[in-house]
Amino acid sequence: MKRLIQNGTIVTASDTYKADLLIEGETIAQIGQQLAVQGVDEIIDASGCFVFPGGIDPHTHLDMPFGGTVTKDDFETGTIAAAYGGTTTIIDFCLTEKEKPLHTAIEAWHKKAAGKAAIDYGFHLMIGEINEAVLNELPAIVSTEGISSFKVFMAYKHVFQADDATLFETLTKAKELGALVMVHAENGDVIDYLTKQALKEGKTAPIYHALTRPVEAEGEATGRACQLASLAQSQLYVVHVTCQEAVQQIAEARKQGADIWGETCPQYLVLDESMLRKPGFEGAKYVWSPPLREKQHQDALWKALKTGALQTIGSDQCSFDFAGQKDLGINDFTKIPNGGPIIEDRFSLLYSEGVAKGRIGLNEFVDLVSTRAAKLFGLYPKKGCIAVGADADIVLFDPQAERVLSARTHHLAVDYSAFEGMRVKGTPRTVLSRGKVIVRDQTYVGTPGEGAFLKRARYGELWTNDLVGQR
Amino acid sequence: MKRLIQNGTIVTASDTYKADLLIEGETIAQIGQQLAVQGVDEIIDASGCFVFPGGIDPHTHLDMPFGGTVTKDDFETGTIAAAYGGTTTIIDFCLTEKEKPLHTAIEAWHKKAAGKAAIDYGFHLMIGEINEAVLNELPAIVSTEGISSFKVFMAYKHVFQADDATLFETLTKAKELGALVMVHAENGDVIDYLTKQALKEGKTAPIYHALTRPVEAEGEATGRACQLASLAQSQLYVVHVTCQEAVQQIAEARKQGADIWGETCPQYLVLDESMLRKPGFEGAKYVWSPPLREKQHQDALWKALKTGALQTIGSDQCSFDFAGQKDLGINDFTKIPNGGPIIEDRFSLLYSEGVAKGRIGLNEFVDLVSTRAAKLFGLYPKKGCIAVGADADIVLFDPQAERVLSARTHHLAVDYSAFEGMRVKGTPRTVLSRGKVIVRDQTYVGTPGEGAFLKRARYGELWTNDLVGQR
Amino acid sequence: MKRLIQNGTIVTASDTYKADLLIEGETIAQIGQQLAVQGVDEIIDASGCFVFPGGIDPHTHLDMPFGGTVTKDDFETGTIAAAYGGTTTIIDFCLTEKEKPLHTAIEAWHKKAAGKAAIDYGFHLMIGEINEAVLNELPAIVSTEGISSFKVFMAYKHVFQADDATLFETLTKAKELGALVMVHAENGDVIDYLTKQALKEGKTAPIYHALTRPVEAEGEATGRACQLASLAQSQLYVVHVTCQEAVQQIAEARKQGADIWGETCPQYLVLDESMLRKPGFEGAKYVWSPPLREKQHQDALWKALKTGALQTIGSDQCSFDFAGQKDLGINDFTKIPNGGPIIEDRFSLLYSEGVAKGRIGLNEFVDLVSTRAAKLFGLYPKKGCIAVGADADIVLFDPQAERVLSARTHHLAVDYSAFEGMRVKGTPRTVLSRGKVIVRDQTYVGTPGEGAFLKRARYGELWTNDLVGQR
Amino acid sequence: MKRLIQNGTIVTASDTYKADLLIEGETIAQIGQQLAVQGVDEIIDASGCFVFPGGIDPHTHLDMPFGGTVTKDDFETGTIAAAYGGTTTIIDFCLTEKEKPLHTAIEAWHKKAAGKAAIDYGFHLMIGEINEAVLNELPAIVSTEGISSFKVFMAYKHVFQADDATLFETLTKAKELGALVMVHAENGDVIDYLTKQALKEGKTAPIYHALTRPVEAEGEATGRACQLASLAQSQLYVVHVTCQEAVQQIAEARKQGADIWGETCPQYLVLDESMLRKPGFEGAKYVWSPPLREKQHQDALWKALKTGALQTIGSDQCSFDFAGQKDLGINDFTKIPNGGPIIEDRFSLLYSEGVAKGRIGLNEFVDLVSTRAAKLFGLYPKKGCIAVGADADIVLFDPQAERVLSARTHHLAVDYSAFEGMRVKGTPRTVLSRGKVIVRDQTYVGTPGEGAFLKRARYGELWTNDLVGQR
Repeated sequence: MKRLIQNGTIVTASDTYKADLLIEGETIAQIGQQLAVQGVDEIIDASGCFVFPGGIDPHTHLDMPFGGTVTKDDFETGTIAAAYGGTTTIIDFCLTEKEKPLHTAIEAWHKKAAGKAAIDYGFHLMIGEINEAVLNELPAIVSTEGISSFKVFMAYKHVFQADDATLFETLTKAKELGALVMVHAENGDVIDYLTKQALKEGKTAPIYHALTRPVEAEGEATGRACQLASLAQSQLYVVHVTCQEAVQQIAEARKQGADIWGETCPQYLVLDESMLRKPGFEGAKYVWSPPLREKQHQDALWKALKTGALQTIGSDQCSFDFAGQKDLGINDFTKIPNGGPIIEDRFSLLYSEGVAKGRIGLNEFVDLVSTRAAKLFGLYPKKGCIAVGADADIVLFDPQAERVLSARTHHLAVDYSAFEGMRVKGTPRTVLSRGKVIVRDQTYVGTPGEGAFLKRARYGELWTNDLVGQR
Repeated sequence: MKRLIQNGTIVTASDTYKADLLIEGETIAQIGQQLAVQGVDEIIDASGCFVFPGGIDPHTHLDMPFGGTVTKDDFETGTIAAAYGGTTTIIDFCLTEKEKPLHTAIEAWHKKAAGKAAIDYGFHLMIGEINEAVLNELPAIVSTEGISSFKVFMAYKHVFQADDATLFETLTKAKELGALVMVHAENGDVIDYLTKQALKEGKTAPIYHALTRPVEAEGEATGRACQLASLAQSQLYVVHVTCQEAVQQIAEARKQGADIWGETCPQYLVLDESMLRKPGFEGAKYVWSPPLREKQHQDALWKALKTGALQTIGSDQCSFDFAGQKDLGINDFTKIPNGGPIIEDRFSLLYSEGVAKGRIGLNEFVDLVSTRAAKLFGLYPKKGCIAVGADADIVLFDPQAERVLSARTHHLAVDYSAFEGMRVKGTPRTVLSRGKVIVRDQTYVGTPGEGAFLKRARYGELWTNDLVGQR
Repeated sequence: MKRLIQNGTIVTASDTYKADLLIEGETIAQIGQQLAVQGVDEIIDASGCFVFPGGIDPHTHLDMPFGGTVTKDDFETGTIAAAYGGTTTIIDFCLTEKEKPLHTAIEAWHKKAAGKAAIDYGFHLMIGEINEAVLNELPAIVSTEGISSFKVFMAYKHVFQADDATLFETLTKAKELGALVMVHAENGDVIDYLTKQALKEGKTAPIYHALTRPVEAEGEATGRACQLASLAQSQLYVVHVTCQEAVQQIAEARKQGADIWGETCPQYLVLDESMLRKPGFEGAKYVWSPPLREKQHQDALWKALKTGALQTIGSDQCSFDFAGQKDLGINDFTKIPNGGPIIEDRFSLLYSEGVAKGRIGLNEFVDLVSTRAAKLFGLYPKKGCIAVGADADIVLFDPQAERVLSARTHHLAVDYSAFEGMRVKGTPRTVLSRGKVIVRDQTYVGTPGEGAFLKRARYGELWTNDLVGQR
Repeated sequence: MKRLIQNGTIVTASDTYKADLLIEGETIAQIGQQLAVQGVDEIIDASGCFVFPGGIDPHTHLDMPFGGTVTKDDFETGTIAAAYGGTTTIIDFCLTEKEKPLHTAIEAWHKKAAGKAAIDYGFHLMIGEINEAVLNELPAIVSTEGISSFKVFMAYKHVFQADDATLFETLTKAKELGALVMVHAENGDVIDYLTKQALKEGKTAPIYHALTRPVEAEGEATGRACQLASLAQSQLYVVHVTCQEAVQQIAEARKQGADIWGETCPQYLVLDESMLRKPGFEGAKYVWSPPLREKQHQDALWKALKTGALQTIGSDQCSFDFAGQKDLGINDFTKIPNGGPIIEDRFSLLYSEGVAKGRIGLNEFVDLVSTRAAKLFGLYPKKGCIAVGADADIVLFDPQAERVLSARTHHLAVDYSAFEGMRVKGTPRTVLSRGKVIVRDQTYVGTPGEGAFLKRARYGELWTNDLVGQR
């Protein structure tokens, strides 16, 4: 099966040029001017479009239990929405439980995804404790099962929170095994205290979710994680960075030569704390952890993306219906399920607010939304690039089209949009996954279950490898 | 004329993949797996080689008068050596004189290059003063003549040095015209004083060249230039950054959102101040301005390249024979012509010390040695990339070959090498300029004069342009 | 002649305690509880008062020519007003002219002060150029004439501005001679350019004085001066620091171990840029150089005083009548004489806004307003302290009294107050100069001309001296 | 009883002057020139001496159980040694146990001191947990019992270590009650892990004590404590700061306006990590926590004292015999009792290495060794100054005398000196405690038990108080 994409402008993390693109089977075979059409089964016209590598979302929570409920979107609705939005790969967090084998969780996660995923997917593994059993399971998980990234929570006291000993040992072990340690960096002890105080004082509205998780709690934990990683001489990836305080810690550690990376999410770039003060219980729609911040932090985050202090954009997709789920917390903000729907809009929001508004360049956009994540998480060069031999995960993106984000038009199962009414510039028109068109002219034409599990390489393994082979 | 490069590993500023590359005439026509060979005039085997975009050296001084003499290498010997070393484009500094029309200098520079250059070239224009006449000439120089970068010297008192008023007005004007302002950032007043003091005290040996140009003088001037650029909201490019103090100033300004870029040179990455203390007058071979620094600054520079605080590698090629030129300063270090031979080894040194030693990645290397300069200086996407439609300026680089740098084997006219006896890993094997092989298997096979003058686009114009065309 | 101050609370730069104070002649003889009254000529009741060492104002311009006019207040009106305000010592700037002997200026300054000064005074010496003649005069000026501080201007292009060579050589020379170099740190070149641009665009109102002297110009020059001082391993005192940018540079240099000090002035602590926008020409009253800044800089300055990044408070007294002097600039802000009346209110404003509002402590106040200047400028322990043997320069300060600052009630000759209508807490009630009461119950009872010229010790000489004598 | 100190040079935290000093009973009555001798019971000649306020050591552990043993020096030997060394007040740490009333520990501590202390003393209270019972006891402890400082340990996992919730709540509570929170800032989790790893690998020698407590662990914990204090808007005092990393965190927080203070100890200023590598088990003598650091940190600490980033000098006195106590760890460094003898030499070491070597000034010395601690810990103006009305705690210090520190000549019970053989300049000759001579010409002439327990004022209460009384 041969497909030819004609007349588009190919955009990679470094280059932009007009060329046709020939796909044979699942991978890219040729890139050239006016490639021959004989023998081609399908011709796709990309006139007026950017031809981007498919987006990679390194931070999703699909079909995840949380606070007595389960995210509304699962691997089917979530990945279809992702595909609509221009994302062709996700890496989802596999949550483990203390004192249970890690494999119990991994198997559960495979079951959630199998037969449902519309696009390719991988898993990160949560580490909640380190003990003999955990240490026994980890090596094969990384080397054989292709799960080469661990997640440690510094927040959610009495639930997910690990202590510094666990974080430090995870970093040490990860270095040995070739895994990348991801942290949710907020000081859970402080938040726990502030939360209890707020409730004691009768402060139950959604805004108190933000006020009990101050930027200092994130800045402190980020600095701590960076220093532990530096000491362990290991690699670290800080998820969902939201504020100047945390950016500063990461930038400082990198300047010292530490192997540390930072991710932010579109919600922190375009929404702010004031949303949690919306009348009634409306603010619950905007309850993320870390919380939305005061507006001035947006500028700090954009600058960090521009100067390379932050390197990726995750969605932290984690959706709960406003009616029936978010309202568990109507009398107590601590019971509002944390998170929101964003997997579909991640790609477009970054383009519209970033590229179209001149805050980041076109090639930087590709790096942020796709290439860098592929390199960091062992997917490159199979994913994350438009290059001969790579998987033909491709987005035809019309930069002129404008549209309005809304729960009425999105493709998630959840009942609201956090970006309701926001006008964005640019739309993913057609999306290919491993050479097959799964979204054609903004209509999903794929089949759930086509998405495959991705065994990922060890940290640093592939992308520093010499492809010449002799070294 | 069609040429096919087979079996190589293509490396761009973001991607690395195995593919063949078809060249039609002067440009790249196709990239693909096992491209058809029929109709191809020449097949070049790149087995075991990286296929890099040709190096771009944004900082050369060829056929330049300095201190009563003239650089040994001119546009012929200099560009042939560059080609041997994997560099296919240079941008040379056109030095102007006060109270003379800028065009007098530009015409002189065109004459120096014409009929001699083995590779393509552009010019930067030195600004020594701002007055009515200068302001009248500048717009056409940028827009019509394709000289879109200005150079201002903060050092060389009574010779090239401009005052802050000139620098600030140049920045302001450059913003209006779309030019990039480059600064030599050392405090010339301080250096002038220290130099006179040293001579008064009978300190005439080469080492005093370094001791009278301390890092503080560079750090200060760099900070000053950054702050003036920020205030003018203009763009700035700091040439030949050598020390932690200067890196820090650039990093800080960028963090604040300033549009500021920094270049370093291989000599600062691999040589150090102790070379100026070599017995006899040997130290004169290592007299650059700014001077070589104490060894610990090398680490700061590598970290800056790694984290993006510095973005390009220039050579600052400026060669003088040891016998007959450098020895003008045998009794007075201030009379030693400043500069050294480096145009040929820039590319290989960065690969060998950077990539082969694991300090920077392969794609980062390409960005530093070629792509970023193309983007900053208005040459992209014609130069600086391996992409369909781009000029076929290409280097086949054998990463396994080892060799020893030496004046006996280099291709410059100058009589010594600053890197004599240094073993490097990796060698440019075959080099193409606009599709034509000019170095084949380490032998120059081109004709001087084939190199063409490059009219460059305005700063920021091309590479943020929408190639889709409709925006 | 013996005087006894009873019932007061003595406050020094470190201590606060209730005690009586016995003065014999011009100096302090005893401090104790209920000192004997026999033999005492005069008893002064300090009930309810703090007993402070007299204020030292290290930054005044009295009887100074500027822009074709002369400051309204001279050594008589200026020092009487200072005495009313609690200041018993000033150090005035002796302005020199290029190509004239320094002594011409020094003699002129002695004439201005002699027979007029109500309090003791010293001189700083402006250095506008360094040449053979200047170098010949300096040693005796420091060692014999007791003028141990030099002032260099980095601003006022074509008037006072010295280039970096002059600043650097002054620093070097000062180190050798034991003098402290003071800088007016603003980039005069940038300001000159911005000023001309503003006038070209018809921007002539007072506010453009501020807008053409941006904080970047001060931050840059401050950093430059600090780096030059560090390189020269000399001592530096930055006068009238106004903004966060400059504070940051000083703090950073001090952190590195540099011997650098910073002064701010009350106007920068309590007034802001918006004053220059007052209707009509009113804004001219607030034209200082550097200019008043946006309000947020006040907080930065208070924090700098609190943490020791700034160490003294000068007034920069330099008064011109609103009618007849300031209005020279009614059609052109560059012709507004720079400066304002502040010598009288410096002490009270710092107390009221600093101590009474809890921003600084009582002992810190004494250090800022008196002791530190005495130590830095070679007046200690004769001045700047309440200690046995010191000059009895003393202020009885009623912290409860409130009053309103106004031109109607101040004691300067100038026709307006920059603090008109401002309510302050605390008033100097009685002031002694060398044991003699010169202000009694808020009435001047001294005689102009009683103030004596102070020969000051070399920098660092007295206050690190071992008073025990054997070392 | 009247005593007169004649012919000395009085030195306070701000002033230095020659004067006599009259003591009536326990307090200072007069300071003056040639005070009358009639009625005086005892005349003390201070010729050639500095007259300092008695030293205040805010950090001692006397008669303290640790690791299965008890410190060799108790309140008798420890305070006599302190007196010999010029220290007239100590504040000792009262260690509490979880789940036991705080008062149990306080009473135990009173018993340890009563009848033994040769000088006055106060207690800090360790907080190991926060619960209902603790919250009930605290208010009276601060307000009635005069214990207005709490100590929280971030290290010593499973022993003293409190979690962040406890630290944060302690900070919050302290703010309400007017107490100062002190932290031992090292990341105990990391240290615990590194320690176990070292032992697993058979690394049992004393040097591993240092290598398992890296500077990053201190820097991180210090930053964390500072950020928690800032967030709580409370006051914080970081004990025994040893390294650049920790200094930087404190300086940064102070720059932001936080009410944070830092202490270092003489051992960190003059000893270094290499001492732990001494042959045999000798290194055990130098086992402190945090450990001695590499030599370059000493310079960072001296600069921090000079610029005010650190403000006090504690001893962290905690002595164990080399034979019989330290050797508990001969086969396992984790069993070496932590700490060393230093209470006697704190004062002299700071003078000799600081003042005599020109690193700090004489007045700064007094502030560091006495005055600042008095102000921070609610002892001022009764202690910490030479001022009329203050306790006559006085040291006559001969700056010319030189001597050699040694276990053979020190007055502690412990069997070694960490400073054996070190020559110091300056010796405390005669020491008075509340007016009474307790050391005369270097001989203890007091009686154990004369020292009194000091009820201390709330944080910030006394020294910002208006002694005039009307405010």
